[in-house]
Amino acid sequence: MTSSITSNKPRVLFIGDINPTAPEHSQYFDLFEVIDYKIVNTEQFHKDMKDDSRYFNLDGIFGGWPSGGGEVGKFTDELVSILKKNSPNLRLITTCTVGYDAFDLEALKRNCIHLSNTPSLGAEDVADLVLWHVLESYRYLSRFQQHLLTVPHTVKSRRILEREVFKYPFGHLYHQQVVHSPRGKKVGILGFGKIGQATGKRLSAIGMEIYYYARNQVKLDSELGFSVTYEPDLKKLVSEMDQIVLALPGNKDTFHMINEELLSHAKEGIKIVNVGRGFLIDGEAAVKALESGKIGFLGLDVFWEEPIVDEALLQRDNISVSPHIGSSTETIFNGTALFCLQNLEKVLIKGEEAESLIV
Amino acid sequence: MTSSITSNKPRVLFIGDINPTAPEHSQYFDLFEVIDYKIVNTEQFHKDMKDDSRYFNLDGIFGGWPSGGGEVGKFTDELVSILKKNSPNLRLITTCTVGYDAFDLEALKRNCIHLSNTPSLGAEDVADLVLWHVLESYRYLSRFQQHLLTVPHTVKSRRILEREVFKYPFGHLYHQQVVHSPRGKKVGILGFGKIGQATGKRLSAIGMEIYYYARNQVKLDSELGFSVTYEPDLKKLVSEMDQIVLALPGNKDTFHMINEELLSHAKEGIKIVNVGRGFLIDGEAAVKALESGKIGFLGLDVFWEEPIVDEALLQRDNISVSPHIGSSTETIFNGTALFCLQNLEKVLIKGEEAESLIV
Repeated sequence: MTSSITSNKPRVLFIGDINPTAPEHSQYFDLFEVIDYKIVNTEQFHKDMKDDSRYFNLDGIFGGWPSGGGEVGKFTDELVSILKKNSPNLRLITTCTVGYDAFDLEALKRNCIHLSNTPSLGAEDVADLVLWHVLESYRYLSRFQQHLLTVPHTVKSRRILEREVFKYPFGHLYHQQVVHSPRGKKVGILGFGKIGQATGKRLSAIGMEIYYYARNQVKLDSELGFSVTYEPDLKKLVSEMDQIVLALPGNKDTFHMINEELLSHAKEGIKIVNVGRGFLIDGEAAVKALESGKIGFLGLDVFWEEPIVDEALLQRDNISVSPHIGSSTETIFNGTALFCLQNLEKVLIKGEEAESLIV
Repeated sequence: MTSSITSNKPRVLFIGDINPTAPEHSQYFDLFEVIDYKIVNTEQFHKDMKDDSRYFNLDGIFGGWPSGGGEVGKFTDELVSILKKNSPNLRLITTCTVGYDAFDLEALKRNCIHLSNTPSLGAEDVADLVLWHVLESYRYLSRFQQHLLTVPHTVKSRRILEREVFKYPFGHLYHQQVVHSPRGKKVGILGFGKIGQATGKRLSAIGMEIYYYARNQVKLDSELGFSVTYEPDLKKLVSEMDQIVLALPGNKDTFHMINEELLSHAKEGIKIVNVGRGFLIDGEAAVKALESGKIGFLGLDVFWEEPIVDEALLQRDNISVSPHIGSSTETIFNGTALFCLQNLEKVLIKGEEAESLIV
């Protein structure tokens, strides 16, 4: 099974698809010897990288979206060593993701393999998704939709939800939850990078008061175009907010940031949206807090056991979920792939330095 | 069954609930002789008003939300005459709704019965709902949620939706629909009153280009806080827009405004959101246009056969629906009721003129 074809083109392993119909990609396929990898699971990926000579002597790796973690798993010290052993010339891994917590950076450095991510091309799209979850957390619109699709009569479908509390159901109750307006409510955005700022702009437009928590104060209001208050004390912030949005990167400092202790400081019924990483939230504490009413609503694009969604969430009324599609628009899918292809060309063909280099 | 109780308090018929737990309402119940009406259907309502002496000799009518149409039906010339005959002192009907197309204004005038609506207290809430439908029309988030609740695994649930087009599903396809960003897309808002303007502010915050159609040019950009272009030519507007939002009142001029002829000028795949009145859209033409692909997405809070939702919509992927809950938040439910109660007090107790008087 050893490949007998030799080529002068750099050998690039493609993990995860790029859009075969995007015309701007096709020119790059001629530049490289393209080696396609069909993902099965993490175990198989490690095994293949170790033993299957089709994947040896690589010059670069195009890490599509799965390289953010998921089914190919983490690029551990062990895996990186294996890659380097079988591909001594491996010089660049590009990942289509913003987050790079799936990569052991020390191991990459030690083995002289560069890693580039993509700049936050999708920040505005992620912020649109946050906005949707926030609207859900006040208005329960997807839930009203689901009932209306089942009982296609506006008044009758509302009546079911209000459980005959009112003779004429106005739609201001979703089961026992009261439908409120987000206007005037305080929202604390944790992490105030591109996604956090784009989120602030949107939540300000629906009349919420914007606060943010970050290690450093970021910008003046005049530059942002809306009013924000910086709050460096996380406990104080959480104790005063009606809602928090997690837009932080995943790392050792942010692991289980939302835990039982922090939640004990929160307002009763706090609404939480997470678009950062699943492990920012301690799942056990969150489920307990949902059950006690401490958390009033939980909107998740990322999950503590991702790709699995905790069973304890599925039957609840006061959650909204999306399958980690914060930036999943065609523009971003094609744009990030193009960015990675260009980086591979720069490093492997032109001998230039990659953009958005992490190590 | 004739009531033998006499009272000096004005007799007020309450059609549709007010919130029994709202403390700000309770003081008003002592001012009036409260006559509760339990809604069955339009026929029964007409019959009761005609024949049941419990509902005679009214001084006022508190028209809760059903008085906007729905199950009590329209206040036709015939009904108004019956009301006046059985209640010669009937002086004021208040409706908790903004729209008053359910009332025959000429008949009310002729019978010297005043009608007051409520000012657009809910404009911002309706605009939040428009925003949700617009986000749905680009991102299909409620649909992704529904699949994820059924297949609680982020990658597997996305894979089902992308039907194995990609080995690793990124989530940028919902079945055959491509998930796009709303950024840079042109949206035409038809009707630029409070709801239209609040909608423009929100859609501008997600990066859309805002146009509006109205009989008259409304405001300068500097007053609105975002950029808008006025377009008085409806056909021209529709031919250039990626999306239109209907935020118009329902009347003879706007009946079936969106019809086959107008749609023939529209861009292929135009997205339409309607929060005005169901009959702004010719349902038959809309269903045909959905089937042909002329309409790419339809987001409805109001329906052409309301309260019934057209069966032809139910199985489609490219729709979003809500059960006429544009302004259904607790604040609005309580606030409009309070406004009506205060108007009844003004007219029936204090002898003052009602606010927000229509006739």
